[in-house]
Amino acid sequence: MGAKGEGPMPEHLYAAILAGGGGTRFWPLSRRARPKQLLRVVGKRTLLEETCARLAGFVPPGRVLVVTGADQAASTREALVGGGSGAGVEVLAEPEGRDTAAAIGFAAEVLRRRDREAVMAVLPADHVVRPAEQLQAALAAACDVAERTGALITFGIPPDRPATGYGYIHRGKKIDEAGGFDVYRVRRFVEKPDLATAEAYLEGGEHDWNSGMFVWRAARILEEIKKHLPAHAKAIAESVDALEAGDAAKLAKVYASMKKVSIDFGVMEKAKEVAAIRAPFAWDDVGAWGAVARLAETDADGLAASGDVIAIDTRDCVIHSAGPLVTALGVRDLVIVATEDAVLVCDRSRDEDVRRVVERLREEGREELL
Amino acid sequence: MGAKGEGPMPEHLYAAILAGGGGTRFWPLSRRARPKQLLRVVGKRTLLEETCARLAGFVPPGRVLVVTGADQAASTREALVGGGSGAGVEVLAEPEGRDTAAAIGFAAEVLRRRDREAVMAVLPADHVVRPAEQLQAALAAACDVAERTGALITFGIPPDRPATGYGYIHRGKKIDEAGGFDVYRVRRFVEKPDLATAEAYLEGGEHDWNSGMFVWRAARILEEIKKHLPAHAKAIAESVDALEAGDAAKLAKVYASMKKVSIDFGVMEKAKEVAAIRAPFAWDDVGAWGAVARLAETDADGLAASGDVIAIDTRDCVIHSAGPLVTALGVRDLVIVATEDAVLVCDRSRDEDVRRVVERLREEGREELL
Repeated sequence: MGAKGEGPMPEHLYAAILAGGGGTRFWPLSRRARPKQLLRVVGKRTLLEETCARLAGFVPPGRVLVVTGADQAASTREALVGGGSGAGVEVLAEPEGRDTAAAIGFAAEVLRRRDREAVMAVLPADHVVRPAEQLQAALAAACDVAERTGALITFGIPPDRPATGYGYIHRGKKIDEAGGFDVYRVRRFVEKPDLATAEAYLEGGEHDWNSGMFVWRAARILEEIKKHLPAHAKAIAESVDALEAGDAAKLAKVYASMKKVSIDFGVMEKAKEVAAIRAPFAWDDVGAWGAVARLAETDADGLAASGDVIAIDTRDCVIHSAGPLVTALGVRDLVIVATEDAVLVCDRSRDEDVRRVVERLREEGREELL
Repeated sequence: MGAKGEGPMPEHLYAAILAGGGGTRFWPLSRRARPKQLLRVVGKRTLLEETCARLAGFVPPGRVLVVTGADQAASTREALVGGGSGAGVEVLAEPEGRDTAAAIGFAAEVLRRRDREAVMAVLPADHVVRPAEQLQAALAAACDVAERTGALITFGIPPDRPATGYGYIHRGKKIDEAGGFDVYRVRRFVEKPDLATAEAYLEGGEHDWNSGMFVWRAARILEEIKKHLPAHAKAIAESVDALEAGDAAKLAKVYASMKKVSIDFGVMEKAKEVAAIRAPFAWDDVGAWGAVARLAETDADGLAASGDVIAIDTRDCVIHSAGPLVTALGVRDLVIVATEDAVLVCDRSRDEDVRRVVERLREEGREELL
């Protein structure tokens, strides 16, 4: 494991990698047991491995928790063994997915019991962030601010287009500085806007995309959960008690009692002392197949091909095979994905609608394909 | 077997169905061991079964020979058993394909030895001809002329577009009449023309497409083969001797000695007494996947789907699955074909170029996919 960061490793910094997504938009490659973060859609490694690799030399594997659902824990562990970037990383299995307030609280409580000074970086497992050096520098700065001030730090992504698929962070005035980064007060979290609003945000320059990446002291986020979601706080403490006691039945029962609520809606939108650092790194949430054309290597014809593919007179396509030979002839602007049991051919501009195919399969009871 | 024709069965009429094609343009469904005529691309039956079915009630199964290569004989027999329209039909296996002069001569010699008065209808196994009644009426008329005058009868297809993919027959003056059909002298067979020539043919009205369907007395075509391809005539007689003697090794050796030449080039272009009947029936040579859109049932969106297919917002496509679920989302004018081991996605206007994919596979030595 080579040291990537410039500075020293922050002594109390831990990472909680959220790996609980279903990822229906990457169907037919993504399935219930093989969610997006376990796919190799961009490079040779899974998105989860890439996420772990970005922490190399900065957060030791023994201080990294991958939080995932019990039904995905086995495949997640499998993806992390074998001496790769995920080796030594711990998997924390939720009995079932109860959204991010529960997942983050669960991880925070585990970490706080290990280290009362723990600072946790919350990182989605299925995003692309480049380069690792810039991520580490930003995390180090956020860790510094979190330790020093107790603030809840978010990372805002400076928008380059009026995206309607993300929530936004409304930046206030600059309140701090760390490691060369300006730190801003957060005035407001806003839900996914309509196009006109998104255009106004882009124009105004005070709004950044909410990346879903956070840094805070574990004890601080637990305080905020206790304040805004008291039932969660109680269930989280009982869940970690049950986990430590090895009482899986109790863990399952207590965990299931939490209502599904996101950390953004349940805590961040209500909390005081929320700060933002503007991301210096390139970021992509790899929302659907079309993202692969942006993120993977493409040839001169704009073709991103992986697996057994023969393309003739074909341009601006994403072609992925996880089994059969896929041949494309004289086509453009398509996403073509083939597995052993299913094939998707989709106009590139419609890649978000792949979920409609998955819905249809669910309606038709085709469980074997979900 | 219901009687379809209006008139009586001609007493000496036999059919030789040519089922020797490779059909690379229907890849990935068509393979060496599963040529076009054994595919169900248009309806529920294979093209070969459909060809047999069109003779029902007109040429008894016992007077139908299906001529195919030894390597396809087993799959051809398999396609014909089971009480369908091919039941009772005989398979005549060529040791290897030596083009149509050999195949037709071989069948003619077999039939002539059984019945010196035999008239044979030569029918490609992989065309669509509708309706059967009109085919039978045209065959009956041709049989009448062939028996009465000894002429070699071809069927010309009145062109509806300046096709460059077919040979043409240049019609001369009317020389006969039978069963309500005019019979014309053939002035000339012409090879596939360029577009300007094809347009002139369409304009001029004297040229019909060469359907590759013929009717003649078996003895007469053998005479013509003897005249224009004497080595073929000798090899054909020796081949049938070997067949009757059960001497497979000799049959293979003699058969292989024939050079590959088509009946059109080797005989028809040189023969005298060639006549043409203009086809009253609809005809399609099912040349490539795009033909399926013309010939199969399509929905209101111009979609011809068969197998396990889910199409959403998809228009004017041919989608065929022989295995995996195929889903199409927001696409148009495509051919999508999936088998267990290969997928093709092709612009509909490029369907003829599927052979380029097959060539590429051959170059790459991917025998398992050929």
